[in-house]
Amino acid sequence: MSKLTEQSCESCRADAPQVTDSEKQDLIRQLPDWDIVELDDEPQLRRQFKFRNFAEAQVFTNKVADMAEEEGHHPAILLEYGKVTVRWWTHKIGGLHKNDFIMAARTDQAYQQQE
Amino acid sequence: MSKLTEQSCESCRADAPQVTDSEKQDLIRQLPDWDIVELDDEPQLRRQFKFRNFAEAQVFTNKVADMAEEEGHHPAILLEYGKVTVRWWTHKIGGLHKNDFIMAARTDQAYQQQE
Repeated sequence: MSKLTEQSCESCRADAPQVTDSEKQDLIRQLPDWDIVELDDEPQLRRQFKFRNFAEAQVFTNKVADMAEEEGHHPAILLEYGKVTVRWWTHKIGGLHKNDFIMAARTDQAYQQQE
Repeated sequence: MSKLTEQSCESCRADAPQVTDSEKQDLIRQLPDWDIVELDDEPQLRRQFKFRNFAEAQVFTNKVADMAEEEGHHPAILLEYGKVTVRWWTHKIGGLHKNDFIMAARTDQAYQQQE
């Protein structure tokens, strides 16, 4: 399987399949810092990123938001003093699409570039 | 009592008192769209703001974040598609300080100016 950061998001229809359990296991291995959590009955990828202060957390929030807007795929981003929590999932299919794993990998990359 | 939006935040020490119940009742009357919620055992002021899309929600997130940075008092801001949820409280005193009500009122004002 090619690296997640090198893959593009596909357009996602409401009838697109969620990733299977075995795909999920393969994909999450590339995202060791992310958890899969159930929120509002939908599985979501979640990671908290740490920063020195609020301003740096805000810069990162904007990086992730700009990336999301570019792809037309939008996460939940919680901005707080010194930390940003990002959640990726595909509400349209009520769960995780491969796109979510790709975006999570790109979020990691944006964090590495900022640090 | 003068309007919340016309008041300045005071510097807040760890031993500053929380607002009393009667002050709280007076202050919340000026913030009809905000709820007081208990999160992690700390009362917080919370309001959700609606937007047409993600980009407008991001603009508002930055307005609130810039305002917070200017005052040195920082909320939690949850940015999602078409909505932003803001929470103000004073972690240092484990509850609500008058500053939180002032910042909530200014957040309302920023929303009105954007709409």
